[in-house]
Amino acid sequence: MNHLQQTPRASALDDYAPQTPPEYQFPDWLQKDEMTSLRQMLALGSRPGMLSFALGQPSAEFFPREAYADAVVELMKKDPLALQYGVPFQPLKQHVARLMAERGVACDERQVFLTSGAQQGVSIVARLLLERGRQLVVEETTYPGLPIIVRPYQPEILTVPSDPETGIDVEALEALLESGVSPAFIYTMSDGHNPLGTSMSVAKRERLVALARRHRVPVVEDDVYGFLYYGDAPAPALRALDPDWVFYLGSFSKMLGPSLRTGWMVVPEALMSRLSVIKDMSDIDTCTISQRAIAVYLESGQFNAQLDSVRREYRARRDLMMRALEEHFPPGTRWSVPGSGVFIWVELPGEADTTELFRRAVEREQVAFFPGAGFCLEENRRASRSMRMNFTNCARDQIEEGIRRLARVIAETPR
Amino acid sequence: MNHLQQTPRASALDDYAPQTPPEYQFPDWLQKDEMTSLRQMLALGSRPGMLSFALGQPSAEFFPREAYADAVVELMKKDPLALQYGVPFQPLKQHVARLMAERGVACDERQVFLTSGAQQGVSIVARLLLERGRQLVVEETTYPGLPIIVRPYQPEILTVPSDPETGIDVEALEALLESGVSPAFIYTMSDGHNPLGTSMSVAKRERLVALARRHRVPVVEDDVYGFLYYGDAPAPALRALDPDWVFYLGSFSKMLGPSLRTGWMVVPEALMSRLSVIKDMSDIDTCTISQRAIAVYLESGQFNAQLDSVRREYRARRDLMMRALEEHFPPGTRWSVPGSGVFIWVELPGEADTTELFRRAVEREQVAFFPGAGFCLEENRRASRSMRMNFTNCARDQIEEGIRRLARVIAETPR
Repeated sequence: MNHLQQTPRASALDDYAPQTPPEYQFPDWLQKDEMTSLRQMLALGSRPGMLSFALGQPSAEFFPREAYADAVVELMKKDPLALQYGVPFQPLKQHVARLMAERGVACDERQVFLTSGAQQGVSIVARLLLERGRQLVVEETTYPGLPIIVRPYQPEILTVPSDPETGIDVEALEALLESGVSPAFIYTMSDGHNPLGTSMSVAKRERLVALARRHRVPVVEDDVYGFLYYGDAPAPALRALDPDWVFYLGSFSKMLGPSLRTGWMVVPEALMSRLSVIKDMSDIDTCTISQRAIAVYLESGQFNAQLDSVRREYRARRDLMMRALEEHFPPGTRWSVPGSGVFIWVELPGEADTTELFRRAVEREQVAFFPGAGFCLEENRRASRSMRMNFTNCARDQIEEGIRRLARVIAETPR
Repeated sequence: MNHLQQTPRASALDDYAPQTPPEYQFPDWLQKDEMTSLRQMLALGSRPGMLSFALGQPSAEFFPREAYADAVVELMKKDPLALQYGVPFQPLKQHVARLMAERGVACDERQVFLTSGAQQGVSIVARLLLERGRQLVVEETTYPGLPIIVRPYQPEILTVPSDPETGIDVEALEALLESGVSPAFIYTMSDGHNPLGTSMSVAKRERLVALARRHRVPVVEDDVYGFLYYGDAPAPALRALDPDWVFYLGSFSKMLGPSLRTGWMVVPEALMSRLSVIKDMSDIDTCTISQRAIAVYLESGQFNAQLDSVRREYRARRDLMMRALEEHFPPGTRWSVPGSGVFIWVELPGEADTTELFRRAVEREQVAFFPGAGFCLEENRRASRSMRMNFTNCARDQIEEGIRRLARVIAETPR
């Protein structure tokens, strides 16, 4: 146990001085008093005048607000238990199971576990599988929420390289798994990778899942962006390839609205009672009213059309951002076309330092992005000159304006 | 690391046999595959025909469903960000701070931290303060969610006696704290104690808080039932007596509806950023729409009248249950009148075993309660002949009927 602060100095004036805050004892992992990057970016993005590409937010203008209001009105009239505690709503589980067919996954409601969003899904899986000091595998460039979620377990995090164009390096993963490590799980994203925007090739998916099976290590597949694709439907999710060793996480947040706080897992049925224990520990219930309102909405048959129009608009914004990058960013800048998801990963030429660039961009031009180094647990030269750019949460005219501003900051930055 | 199951035996038929479920590795504390008592009781209570006094559910008929629907409709029209991620809603924090005055607490929004219900509040406080193997103090008869929440930390749980009439034994607590223990926190309820129904005397409150301050141990005050009182307002909450060493947990669940998944903490401001880290790890956001809809509702000025009518009805149900106990239960049965909360703690005479009684009651008479032993971590003779009876979630006519049925089972049970 450590003390956050030293005992205040003794002094004759102490009784009259304002109270020093008491020295609480915190766990080892929580000694440092700092905000998460997510919270910092949320605060930044809500500053008036700030144009932010920093977060993975969906665009609020496409949330089915009217339909949601209608569903709530109907529920409040007809369903006396919509505001009560309740067991997970079976009809919603059935809808989710049907939805999973679009990701190539055959499952039924017995494998569906509802969560308060996918972040809680990851948090619950960590509780299920991690024990203090165990190993786990992540990509060297990964979702920054993951290391935060697992921090209390003080795990040994093993990293495998990930390529900005093709994603996780499965050969390196194979070598790692064969070196005798024993990770609690492998965390990855098959489509719309955060932050890289990549989708795995079919060959990569198959090899990854075969490795997981052979080494008996669960793969935690975070698929929050999997339903947001901009061309042909992507290859089946990893979960389609193995029902036992892939634990799938999905969410309605990016499709219908994060405020619904409703996501799901597709997991082996044998895990259900343990997951319920962890859910009870966490918050007892996933908002009953969200569960029922989403079910009403899915039954209304509007979802496909709504999702299609979201995809069309996001695709247009993605293309607009790429054109603006082409036009305004320095020659030698690289990015790939994301087939799914909400991010473009942009790598600047030369020795750019995007963390420094971020500070200047926010101060001088009121424009924000997420610096590449924020996605890496270890020093990573390529990531340090890269930036994650969200293309979904800014209106079309703001996209070009934001890229212009960024280009100005880049041009002004000494190399 | 343990294996849940042994490796399946090798056999020439293995390739043709159905797949044995894979042997996942779980943390030590999660080896046993069982449902929480909460989950079992929820499932039981939803069986058709079952009359259940088992859970602490509020009565759904008093939830302001129409007002909630109105608030949602208004929000969906006017607030384009009501379905988006968001920073905690300041106006709701201000409302909570004002509400706390009713519990004798002077605070402002800077000390208010919003949570997805009080269960998440307890869970977050455990993350904030517990490190594996640390000590904590609970009453010998306590909320069963607490031991479940702290289980992953494998703490040494120190218990102090609690009296069914007066609550926590502060003299025993003093002796314990002076014996050189170093608990991470003390968990207790000042009013509407779960399961005992007790409220602490003012003297007890003062002594408890003085002990916490002297020994520099935070008190986690779970006050989910504190606003549900049935006579004069109870004495000020523990938090009113010390802003540094009492961490207060409240919730709208029992007042407006659990499905809103909105609760709060009142904590020292110095803890805010660490709490945000833990919240981000857990589920990022407390449902934005609930936060805003509750604020709309509180602004509408209907809350006080609604809470008053809930209190009146609950008081009537409490009195009805006590009259029925008086009439139907065997002589020598004891209970106290709960001034707050939703439970009556009923102690049967003689050598009754209420766990056994529970099984018979559910099977023979389709009536459920929560057996006293379920609230104790250690063997406890008095609790083993006691039962926690919820009086809020059954209509008036069901209360007498349920008590009659229970009395029949008690009469038939051999001593």
